[in-house]
Amino acid sequence: MNGASRERASGAELLAREAAHRTSPSATDLQYGHTDGVIDLTWGHPDPSALATDAIAQAAEVLLSTRGWQALSYGAPAGAMSLRASIAEHLGHVDGVVAPDDIVIAAGSSGALELVLSLCAVPGDVVFVEQPTYFLALRMFVDHGLRIVGLHSTEEGPDPEHLDQLAAEAARAGVGSLLYLVPTYANPTGRCLGAERARALLDVAARRGVTVIEDDVYRDTNPVAPPSMFSLDPTQVVRLGSFSKSLAPGLRVGYLTSTPAVVNRIATCGLLDSGGGSNHFAAMVVGEVMRSGRFAEVVSAGQDRYRARRTALSQALDHDLFRFDEPDGGFFVWLRLPDGCRSSDVVDAARAGGVLVSDGRLFFADRADDSYVRVSFSMLEHDLLVEGATRLNLAVSRMKRR
Amino acid sequence: MNGASRERASGAELLAREAAHRTSPSATDLQYGHTDGVIDLTWGHPDPSALATDAIAQAAEVLLSTRGWQALSYGAPAGAMSLRASIAEHLGHVDGVVAPDDIVIAAGSSGALELVLSLCAVPGDVVFVEQPTYFLALRMFVDHGLRIVGLHSTEEGPDPEHLDQLAAEAARAGVGSLLYLVPTYANPTGRCLGAERARALLDVAARRGVTVIEDDVYRDTNPVAPPSMFSLDPTQVVRLGSFSKSLAPGLRVGYLTSTPAVVNRIATCGLLDSGGGSNHFAAMVVGEVMRSGRFAEVVSAGQDRYRARRTALSQALDHDLFRFDEPDGGFFVWLRLPDGCRSSDVVDAARAGGVLVSDGRLFFADRADDSYVRVSFSMLEHDLLVEGATRLNLAVSRMKRR
Repeated sequence: MNGASRERASGAELLAREAAHRTSPSATDLQYGHTDGVIDLTWGHPDPSALATDAIAQAAEVLLSTRGWQALSYGAPAGAMSLRASIAEHLGHVDGVVAPDDIVIAAGSSGALELVLSLCAVPGDVVFVEQPTYFLALRMFVDHGLRIVGLHSTEEGPDPEHLDQLAAEAARAGVGSLLYLVPTYANPTGRCLGAERARALLDVAARRGVTVIEDDVYRDTNPVAPPSMFSLDPTQVVRLGSFSKSLAPGLRVGYLTSTPAVVNRIATCGLLDSGGGSNHFAAMVVGEVMRSGRFAEVVSAGQDRYRARRTALSQALDHDLFRFDEPDGGFFVWLRLPDGCRSSDVVDAARAGGVLVSDGRLFFADRADDSYVRVSFSMLEHDLLVEGATRLNLAVSRMKRR
Repeated sequence: MNGASRERASGAELLAREAAHRTSPSATDLQYGHTDGVIDLTWGHPDPSALATDAIAQAAEVLLSTRGWQALSYGAPAGAMSLRASIAEHLGHVDGVVAPDDIVIAAGSSGALELVLSLCAVPGDVVFVEQPTYFLALRMFVDHGLRIVGLHSTEEGPDPEHLDQLAAEAARAGVGSLLYLVPTYANPTGRCLGAERARALLDVAARRGVTVIEDDVYRDTNPVAPPSMFSLDPTQVVRLGSFSKSLAPGLRVGYLTSTPAVVNRIATCGLLDSGGGSNHFAAMVVGEVMRSGRFAEVVSAGQDRYRARRTALSQALDHDLFRFDEPDGGFFVWLRLPDGCRSSDVVDAARAGGVLVSDGRLFFADRADDSYVRVSFSMLEHDLLVEGATRLNLAVSRMKRR
């Protein structure tokens, strides 16, 4: 099937295909919920049909038959050394030199962030964020009693001078400070932070004692992703990594890489001693997927899939209507709306037109910029993305005409 | 093989058997480490050979072939409803009526405790503990900046009047307060809190606004375990449950049961929204083990195994030397040492005699009572338990004679 024939499929045909594909999602077991007749571009989930189900089933079988009880007992607090070694090798190919001892296994990148916030921050500390940023991280900061401060930000990233000024104030007030960033194929913008800006931010962080939390979960969506901030200068950085985008989010396996001091603080905490590390069984399954060589195949297939989809969605969106950069990785396109269109109105009009998009206001910490919506290309196949974009184009062009 | 022939095996034979049994534990992947020639009664781990490896392998295979991507996507924040329903049914048989909506799935009971401490407490809050108590919970309290206060405690449990007085002081000071207990087959004592004392503590908690954290991880080690505090009166209680003792700790699947307010607070936190619940894949595996009926078999086999072992260890210990109650469940026997024997000296003498025991001082919050050691019967087979007890008897009887 070529692109032309795909695009001739009607919306009704596409939705019937999607409904069949989703097969009774037992919504109460899952976060994902499907609404019939609607194309949902809000989910930042990997495509269900692209999850590495076969590789994981095979790995679980091999793991349990070869390692037996060792896959099911309490794990090492910092995580199984065999997996840490595989991650170090993988990062050596795609990022920079990392030693197994620099790594702690966590329950996804969210679990890694939770460990950092629990053990390296206290309520009342301030967390600086770029704007826009990942909205659920904001929720976690609130849960931990942190004060969120949005930095002046442009398409080049957050302003180092603004960080410098605010971090100096925090230091004078005796308050700890963190900087949270998604520098590589960001959620929601899809952008990458340039190396020069990254170094400028790291310099400020080092001078002002700011801990940089680098949320690096989209690295594996492009084989030529730029180097992590951790690889530029690990001194102040905790980098959060994940297998949620590459293998499967339900495994809840991720990791952090950081300095010996941070790694040691986290690896010696009561939680990881009491529980025997984070998710030992699932982590050992991931270790087996890596050991067997299937991981490289799965990552490569995912890169091809997501490249095709981001191109499909970007091409189908009306470039006269929306201003956006076609991203090189990640799961999202960040659309600047036509002048005079408010994001809340666009969300409503899109819903009425049978497509769901995320209100950009969600992603701002301290102001409600209503000029953007986020659309995700990760979960849906080509034809649905094109149909969704077509519906969105139509809904917004009608708004403009009114 | 009967008990008599077992007991004739030499220590050397036993250790050779143990070493073969352990088969290269790849210590850096695991928390457990084995020392040749030593019988280690310090580990509160399930027996590796008794972990439900077959049931879990079968469940993983069935799960992935029948549910596919639904086992691997982001899960519902409170956990898969199918597992919550199975847990509610199980608790209905062994404890009391619990609705699926009263349950949140967590990454083991330690993960459940972490959620409670992160979301229902703030640094500076006070946590009251019975003495002795689970030492790694104490580490987690410290990590969360809580102030630990030991309650006056006897074999009947902590003193409700002492709790009343201290909780009143905390309330007057405007400080939040928690009460942490292991009321059923406690770690380290193996004891159960009587219903009358439990009700008295619950009354104080209700009057003083104390949140009771009931660590209930040993419930499934005896089919006639007493009712949980949660089942007596859920008003103030968060009960922590686990599959670590029944199925396998490396799965990192547990749960909490609590009031709608606590369940809602936890189920709506940023971490569980961002991560899609705790350990969705492993939780779905546990759900399949329960659905298939294998769970009941595994639990029953565990109950038989641990009953035989606690009897073996208790009978082999010298009742003239040690004062202790033979427990009805759990993993531990708590030994009061002969007068004049200090626990640190006993630990040293035992090690010199080829057996490791836990210094009782670990389990006290605010005083170092050195009259106890803890021995665990969960991890080792009958003959090793008998040999370990024999070595301990010898080491301590020699100390007394000196």
